[in-house]
Amino acid sequence: MRMRCMCLVLHAPEDLRLDEQMTDELGPGQVLVRVGMGGICGSDLHYFRHGGFGAIRIKEPMVLGHEVAGTVAAMASDVTSFEVGDRVAVNPSRPCGACRFCLEGLPNQCLDMRYYGSAMRMPHSQGAFRDALVCNASQCHAVAPGVPMAEAAVAEPFSVALHAVGRAGSLLGKRVLVSGCGPIGVLAIAAARLHGAAEVVATDVVDEALAIARRMGAHHTINAASDQDWVARNAADKGSFDVMFECSGNERALRDGLEVMRPRGVVVQLGLGGDVSVPQNLIVAKELALMGSFRFHAEFALAVKLINDRRVDLSPIITRAFPMQDAVSAFELAADRKRAMKVLIDFGLGAEA
Amino acid sequence: MRMRCMCLVLHAPEDLRLDEQMTDELGPGQVLVRVGMGGICGSDLHYFRHGGFGAIRIKEPMVLGHEVAGTVAAMASDVTSFEVGDRVAVNPSRPCGACRFCLEGLPNQCLDMRYYGSAMRMPHSQGAFRDALVCNASQCHAVAPGVPMAEAAVAEPFSVALHAVGRAGSLLGKRVLVSGCGPIGVLAIAAARLHGAAEVVATDVVDEALAIARRMGAHHTINAASDQDWVARNAADKGSFDVMFECSGNERALRDGLEVMRPRGVVVQLGLGGDVSVPQNLIVAKELALMGSFRFHAEFALAVKLINDRRVDLSPIITRAFPMQDAVSAFELAADRKRAMKVLIDFGLGAEA
Amino acid sequence: MRMRCMCLVLHAPEDLRLDEQMTDELGPGQVLVRVGMGGICGSDLHYFRHGGFGAIRIKEPMVLGHEVAGTVAAMASDVTSFEVGDRVAVNPSRPCGACRFCLEGLPNQCLDMRYYGSAMRMPHSQGAFRDALVCNASQCHAVAPGVPMAEAAVAEPFSVALHAVGRAGSLLGKRVLVSGCGPIGVLAIAAARLHGAAEVVATDVVDEALAIARRMGAHHTINAASDQDWVARNAADKGSFDVMFECSGNERALRDGLEVMRPRGVVVQLGLGGDVSVPQNLIVAKELALMGSFRFHAEFALAVKLINDRRVDLSPIITRAFPMQDAVSAFELAADRKRAMKVLIDFGLGAEA
Amino acid sequence: MRMRCMCLVLHAPEDLRLDEQMTDELGPGQVLVRVGMGGICGSDLHYFRHGGFGAIRIKEPMVLGHEVAGTVAAMASDVTSFEVGDRVAVNPSRPCGACRFCLEGLPNQCLDMRYYGSAMRMPHSQGAFRDALVCNASQCHAVAPGVPMAEAAVAEPFSVALHAVGRAGSLLGKRVLVSGCGPIGVLAIAAARLHGAAEVVATDVVDEALAIARRMGAHHTINAASDQDWVARNAADKGSFDVMFECSGNERALRDGLEVMRPRGVVVQLGLGGDVSVPQNLIVAKELALMGSFRFHAEFALAVKLINDRRVDLSPIITRAFPMQDAVSAFELAADRKRAMKVLIDFGLGAEA
Repeated sequence: MRMRCMCLVLHAPEDLRLDEQMTDELGPGQVLVRVGMGGICGSDLHYFRHGGFGAIRIKEPMVLGHEVAGTVAAMASDVTSFEVGDRVAVNPSRPCGACRFCLEGLPNQCLDMRYYGSAMRMPHSQGAFRDALVCNASQCHAVAPGVPMAEAAVAEPFSVALHAVGRAGSLLGKRVLVSGCGPIGVLAIAAARLHGAAEVVATDVVDEALAIARRMGAHHTINAASDQDWVARNAADKGSFDVMFECSGNERALRDGLEVMRPRGVVVQLGLGGDVSVPQNLIVAKELALMGSFRFHAEFALAVKLINDRRVDLSPIITRAFPMQDAVSAFELAADRKRAMKVLIDFGLGAEA
Repeated sequence: MRMRCMCLVLHAPEDLRLDEQMTDELGPGQVLVRVGMGGICGSDLHYFRHGGFGAIRIKEPMVLGHEVAGTVAAMASDVTSFEVGDRVAVNPSRPCGACRFCLEGLPNQCLDMRYYGSAMRMPHSQGAFRDALVCNASQCHAVAPGVPMAEAAVAEPFSVALHAVGRAGSLLGKRVLVSGCGPIGVLAIAAARLHGAAEVVATDVVDEALAIARRMGAHHTINAASDQDWVARNAADKGSFDVMFECSGNERALRDGLEVMRPRGVVVQLGLGGDVSVPQNLIVAKELALMGSFRFHAEFALAVKLINDRRVDLSPIITRAFPMQDAVSAFELAADRKRAMKVLIDFGLGAEA
Repeated sequence: MRMRCMCLVLHAPEDLRLDEQMTDELGPGQVLVRVGMGGICGSDLHYFRHGGFGAIRIKEPMVLGHEVAGTVAAMASDVTSFEVGDRVAVNPSRPCGACRFCLEGLPNQCLDMRYYGSAMRMPHSQGAFRDALVCNASQCHAVAPGVPMAEAAVAEPFSVALHAVGRAGSLLGKRVLVSGCGPIGVLAIAAARLHGAAEVVATDVVDEALAIARRMGAHHTINAASDQDWVARNAADKGSFDVMFECSGNERALRDGLEVMRPRGVVVQLGLGGDVSVPQNLIVAKELALMGSFRFHAEFALAVKLINDRRVDLSPIITRAFPMQDAVSAFELAADRKRAMKVLIDFGLGAEA
Repeated sequence: MRMRCMCLVLHAPEDLRLDEQMTDELGPGQVLVRVGMGGICGSDLHYFRHGGFGAIRIKEPMVLGHEVAGTVAAMASDVTSFEVGDRVAVNPSRPCGACRFCLEGLPNQCLDMRYYGSAMRMPHSQGAFRDALVCNASQCHAVAPGVPMAEAAVAEPFSVALHAVGRAGSLLGKRVLVSGCGPIGVLAIAAARLHGAAEVVATDVVDEALAIARRMGAHHTINAASDQDWVARNAADKGSFDVMFECSGNERALRDGLEVMRPRGVVVQLGLGGDVSVPQNLIVAKELALMGSFRFHAEFALAVKLINDRRVDLSPIITRAFPMQDAVSAFELAADRKRAMKVLIDFGLGAEA
């Protein structure tokens, strides 16, 4: 069984079209999901505006999107875990389960990953910004009644934040700095609070983002553009922060963070900024650890559970949903940090936005 | 009791003089050490040539040196652990034992450290390049019969290498890369071998240094200047090294290393190179950890024990010892990586070199 | 300056008297605390009923108690951190700050510890069940307005629970079992929830205790006496719990827990039960880790902060406070697990209970 | 292709027969190994004498053995990694590669493990004490020229020891205790030495075993039966050992070890002794960690590499090899700790023993 569906296909930078395609064949263990909401990620935005980032470039038309939730519309006969009508968040991470990293428990480092909407491999991994999606039942996680579809779609970036918190180790008693209050940054704030951070301080250069950071749990926020003195205030006695989540990709944010970290502090890097200049002597002298954090896998189930249990309120980050016909407007708004945090595409006629 | 002694005092860049001074008063718990040998460290060389490094500059005359071994010549009446004539290696690390980092078990991060021959604080911590030194008995570690004094003096940089190995965690089954085969690099090779590294590969751009690296235990060496292809050969499938000890401070060495590290690989940074440009996206995507390693404390006792037990042979790194009157020649030779690895000053008339 | 004070002195098992003593001299850096509330700990109860536990026995009259909060009544002239009238919780942990464990960052393992109300050393460390206590200002932590004195006194056992959570490492996504719902057990539940445990299941054999466990955050509770099947239900596929906090000291509770732990699961042992029989083959085959957790030190400040910030509600565990004249009644009630969780002594006439 | 082979089949306790069977069919990716040597493990001995251990009992005839090395005699057409005549050690660990523990990087905890010669599942996993064995090429690891076949067969128990060392974490500067100097114990000594243990002390009650312990690298050995004082000597100041490998399964050995471990010490349990009584209060008060270690997987490749590189000399543990016709004599000798350490069966006529 295959069916027609409408997809948001990027043909070239700034050339995003709503095209009709056929879904994949529904195979054993699979379900057909009628997509409700899809969140626009920074990487989607990079593809849209620049055709990619770093060495990764679109080389053929590619459906964008990997942050989606929807409703089960059909399933293979062997699928017993879902029924038609169940609302689900869809994990876009599809590791091979057989390479050496999968077998070491590092599926996010899979050598044969097929992540939705990624141009890393050729042919590209087509994305999930489409009104119908065939996927594995194992990718689907039931969404609890009362959870808005838009918040369910945020399970994906929340998983990224949870994975980063896992990289940092226990936050018990820790003073935490989050730099960069885009969607990942503010979700890192929520994830750090949920896992026991004693104090969370957030920095950004946009006041609107900092206001959302406070709503997501930051004890204090600092506008690093206007508060010239914040580094000096926090750098005494070799620094005062135990853990940093660097979510901006900005060189200055990282360098300022290194100044205010205490000896043996851990900086978890999530932001992607290309080449950045770092003070090697400071990293050595304070024995800091700069650790990358990339995507997630098992954390997706945890993200949905925490959302379902209402242990985290994601509503402050939802900016607005646009009908899929207005996707270009959605992408334009998503690029404006003063007005937007998480912008979504509504593939289900917007009834639930 | 104080006594006259001859000291190597740096008055200004390139202005190193053999001055007469008085030792400190011999207090309770202290010993007078007649210094035999002192190794020239890269930091000594930086002081000599440039008056310091980074933000650290000599602001008053300072005795250089922190890698010394000698013979106990006298002791306070309460010292029972040594006798006159005992040969000892002297730990130059003098943490306060009372600040918050000392009480957290991080004495090398002491807020009131008095490390020999360091201009970090004002007045400077005077160094140990002198023919007589008053120090605490607890800084002294007995050197076994048969260990040459020059090798005992190497306990200090060997401690730096051991501390770095400790930062990396267990090396069981690990493939290890060491970049930069100066004294610290080749001692890191030996330390990694002693602690179970399955394979050690060393890189440098000087063949003479690589030859010593092999003698210190490297399974393979690579001249990164002439072997253009080594990164490509080792970067397949996201990279093949588990642990890297970056001992060069060179940006290119670090960047090449990041390319050949496997996901979740650990780079322990020892080299001091100022600002370096790093590929943030690679650190994120492979979830690498870049961890600083700074000096040591408890590892000094271990270094002396391993030397005493002849579990490590340090003789390959000893280049030559000069009488203290010829210290300037010693510093000049130490700056030539093709001809020198570890150059020492002989404060005891060279009888034992 | 010394002053008269009333103390609860244990002269022999079941022989607890309200004696008049003199406080210590108020020295530099010290404060005089008018004690408000003191919580009865299981160890106090053991001293009272049996004169000690294991090899530890009272050999001279000893003031009991180590869980106290009160009001600053006077201070040495060099103390600037407090004013008269400040309400404080008092950390009973007084490590020496100089032994090797203190200098390794393990003050709770201090070789010269003077913990309040402990017969471990001779002469005993006198306790804090007294209406006036001279202690170091550094032991005192300000209690926020609105926090009942009784809950401030619970900072001590809450610190024990926080230390245990720290031993377990990150609880992100973890399924946690707590066995034994006495004060430490239910505080471990709260501490685990605060630090991100995905699910907390608690067991005990007393329904009244389990009811409090639920109020402290347990998702599910199991009466292990009446639910014969719970181990079998949770032991499939080598077990389903990631972390266990064993707070009962009961052999059966530990053995059941080992059955339901997943491979590589971590059991943090807090309960003290003397010799217990464990299945060595199960520990080996599932590669379980059984880790002791003992007291705390830095966690006391964290406990007070979490209480002050109202991130934890300790009111469910407060059973009742008795005037110090009725201390024996308090101890008798504290021994009845069906009627009591945390029983306190009111040293301040009960005005605030 | 299948072929006749001779197998050592246990039909009942003490009923071990040399039976003719057919090998498995040679499938894709597989090789036929002509087995040279097979080492008798403690579990083989338990099957032979008692029909099993703990709850594990033979319920049908089972070929024993899992420590084997031999020579490649044939291979499937798709196997390119070996040639006929290559000598190989065979990894008996065959995890499924698909269960949740395999996908978490814990193949030794596989829910569907098929380990050679194990009665854990029904039908039993038949063993490798046979003169011809069909196995996967991926189980085979090339043995270097000059390595005796008997020592190659020891790669399996050496893997067990390496896995345990991995569980303990870095041994840098650590004082290590090994209790129980059977084959696993003395191999743990060698593995700990290879991975940097500063000092290794071994205990047993059999002098002959202790003599081999010294040859395998123990700095000191203690006969715990005759030296009544050793615990007291090592227990001062809360104990002096950092890490213990408990290889005896003996309750007294474990309890003595807990006495001499320092606070936060790590006891890695390998020995299997059924129910043992442990002092819970001591584990709590010193915050000891008792961690199980079970089999291995990736460590087999490392074991063969270390043997091939001659970084470990296993010859001291080889007692003697018996022709397969004399297997019963071999098992009888293996049971005598005064006369035997590792006894082998020679399936290749003993030419190479």
